[in-house]
Amino acid sequence: MNIKISNAYALIDDRIDRHSIYITGDSISGIDSEPEGFKAEKTIDGTDRLVIPGLINAHTHSYMAPLRNIADDMPFMDWLLKGVNPVEDKMTGEDAYWGAMLAIAEMIRCGTTTFNDMQMHIHNTTRAVKESGMRAVICRGLVGDKYDRDDVRIREAFEEMPDGEGTNGRLTFRLGPHAPYSAGFDYLRCVADIAGEKGLGIHIHLAESVTEIENLKKEHGLTPIEYADKAGCFDVPCIAAHCVQVTDSDIELMARKNVSVVTNPASNMKLGNGFAPVPEMVEAGINVCLGTDGAASNNTLNMFHEMSLLTLIHKGTHKTPVCIGAAEALRMATVNGAKALGLEKTGEIKTGYKADLAILDINTPSMVPRNNMLSSLTYSANGSEVDTTIADGEILMEGRELKTVDLERVLYETNRMMERLS
Amino acid sequence: MNIKISNAYALIDDRIDRHSIYITGDSISGIDSEPEGFKAEKTIDGTDRLVIPGLINAHTHSYMAPLRNIADDMPFMDWLLKGVNPVEDKMTGEDAYWGAMLAIAEMIRCGTTTFNDMQMHIHNTTRAVKESGMRAVICRGLVGDKYDRDDVRIREAFEEMPDGEGTNGRLTFRLGPHAPYSAGFDYLRCVADIAGEKGLGIHIHLAESVTEIENLKKEHGLTPIEYADKAGCFDVPCIAAHCVQVTDSDIELMARKNVSVVTNPASNMKLGNGFAPVPEMVEAGINVCLGTDGAASNNTLNMFHEMSLLTLIHKGTHKTPVCIGAAEALRMATVNGAKALGLEKTGEIKTGYKADLAILDINTPSMVPRNNMLSSLTYSANGSEVDTTIADGEILMEGRELKTVDLERVLYETNRMMERLS
Repeated sequence: MNIKISNAYALIDDRIDRHSIYITGDSISGIDSEPEGFKAEKTIDGTDRLVIPGLINAHTHSYMAPLRNIADDMPFMDWLLKGVNPVEDKMTGEDAYWGAMLAIAEMIRCGTTTFNDMQMHIHNTTRAVKESGMRAVICRGLVGDKYDRDDVRIREAFEEMPDGEGTNGRLTFRLGPHAPYSAGFDYLRCVADIAGEKGLGIHIHLAESVTEIENLKKEHGLTPIEYADKAGCFDVPCIAAHCVQVTDSDIELMARKNVSVVTNPASNMKLGNGFAPVPEMVEAGINVCLGTDGAASNNTLNMFHEMSLLTLIHKGTHKTPVCIGAAEALRMATVNGAKALGLEKTGEIKTGYKADLAILDINTPSMVPRNNMLSSLTYSANGSEVDTTIADGEILMEGRELKTVDLERVLYETNRMMERLS
Repeated sequence: MNIKISNAYALIDDRIDRHSIYITGDSISGIDSEPEGFKAEKTIDGTDRLVIPGLINAHTHSYMAPLRNIADDMPFMDWLLKGVNPVEDKMTGEDAYWGAMLAIAEMIRCGTTTFNDMQMHIHNTTRAVKESGMRAVICRGLVGDKYDRDDVRIREAFEEMPDGEGTNGRLTFRLGPHAPYSAGFDYLRCVADIAGEKGLGIHIHLAESVTEIENLKKEHGLTPIEYADKAGCFDVPCIAAHCVQVTDSDIELMARKNVSVVTNPASNMKLGNGFAPVPEMVEAGINVCLGTDGAASNNTLNMFHEMSLLTLIHKGTHKTPVCIGAAEALRMATVNGAKALGLEKTGEIKTGYKADLAILDINTPSMVPRNNMLSSLTYSANGSEVDTTIADGEILMEGRELKTVDLERVLYETNRMMERLS
């Protein structure tokens, strides 16, 4: 569809000014100058609107959205073994589909257009992604301890990949070795080798908890970062989630190997892991992006909430108000995420770029006054200001009404599922 | 008006179950059992609704709401001297009125029914409070350095107090000596004496920044807590905002003197002051409540945002997932605030208590599944779930439409004000 967004505020290159934006098919075809022969099939009045690049949630587990309240305020091992795992184990593929749909509904409502997903249920998340119109990178979670290319999970990862056909590139894939402690060294090397052969990227959890560091140090004399590097994970495009407990030399190594780091502030606090050294990683030149993690450890997939945490907590830990500012947080939640996920021409409002956009209603108290909307976006907006969400040129929400997801059904099915599973 | 909320989920004594709630005039007149002779003039269908006590924002500066984006991501002294102060100095009383109205609109929309305000513009905040129907405690900010009962600000504080008449107790008053560093010792003692004579409480900023501690220690050999105690501030009901930089003996002193502490997580992080030792203060038996501070240092007055920060950051600093849980955060944001402000029969859903309520639409992704809504309230809700807000038995918002505040006019006036002032 050809869409014209007329005379709206728009966030371009860290600045917010009035622009008209033209969308042809899946892409932005013009900014302020109308493309030749353009005929708008739909015009969105931008008077009280602010257009930003669709937000990119660079680390989540969408199928876990219904587990958002399953195990809060309890010790980590109880959270995992008594709370999350028993429910997770009982989830069927159909449950995972509805779970992903709940996640997708929540993300679209908060202006997220892309997510990077580590998941466990073949074909079910991809089905939800295809139906919803969101952009996603799907990574089959890989857990194992032997060098075995025929591992069932690795096979499944490849079996899913044809699902991306016919999605205009909306649905792409990576390999998702879970973590050094759950994927042994040989297995990790195997996955890295396959990724290299097939030209795939890797998505992995690294250096999340102190226990993980201590155990790895004891058994292998390596940090998780060194371990992953030694196994070859950094010789392919790698996106590393968490990186809370990292040394200066870990940071230097990741910078040198062009590893992208996804920081997950809420999850790291909620599970008692602490605060990732984000300012230090940025300073070292690492491409840092932002993710919510799964709902069991957050408990929301709202990237506005996550941006707010990102701008606040490091000011608290570093005792300075000048640390991870609004513009930087927005870059981490958009263009840095696109770069980490290898998504070309995505994450910015530029001619020729993918039409992945969130349009906010700025006639709300949290967005008034309009003197510095860059600040409003990270410090006072809560995500409910998003009126319209567009991915790949398709309108997924308008007037806060979801267009591709049957919200009522999703809420009904996920409530019913958790009555059964918990 | 007599209102029946029929068969809704309701938060009572840390539990969420189905209840019907009856409101007669300004109070809750029955829970589950209909009061004799009750005739509902209005019935609210509670099927997909969760009723919670109206949230209590125990420390803010409402008139500063339009300054929310005035000075972000800059060093503290630039924030204050180049950002906030020049604009604040230019604000007229009328500007303060519209500022307070912007704050009130934002608070009602996020389920806040009471706020404790330190303000500077006589009669203007009280006018906004009276018109809006919110409950508020008004504290004239008092800055001075001499023992002078005829200080213009102290006189103004008393001149405002008749504004509370005819508000059915919605509008009450305290004295607001700003802080030890801005109100000298003799002045602070004078204010404490007057508070004692007149039976008023005190609302003061204490131990917010490291600089404040160092200067006071150098000049007087006292911590701000010891200083305020010596000046007599703790001999009257005292609510102390911030208390970020406090010693064990400060905590013990405040506990002994029944000082209530308002913690302001966003503000303390945003200005680089760090994290208040909330778990330690709770452990010592201090009544800890929650506030947003003014919008210039937050930048939102959304108590759901603040509850989320409260539950997350101390888990991060204390490296444990078991620290300031959902139920505790909700108590700090409701009943503890009422206790701190001396508001009787407020902050809980009980028969005979004030009908100050927020009613959430739980048919939203952030509130689904319904297995543990206590968690949803603090970890995944963002405030936009609030459908209806009731204070003192009056409906201030319904279906997200403000009933007592002309939102369009407020947004227009505050935008226009900041174009003029900034």
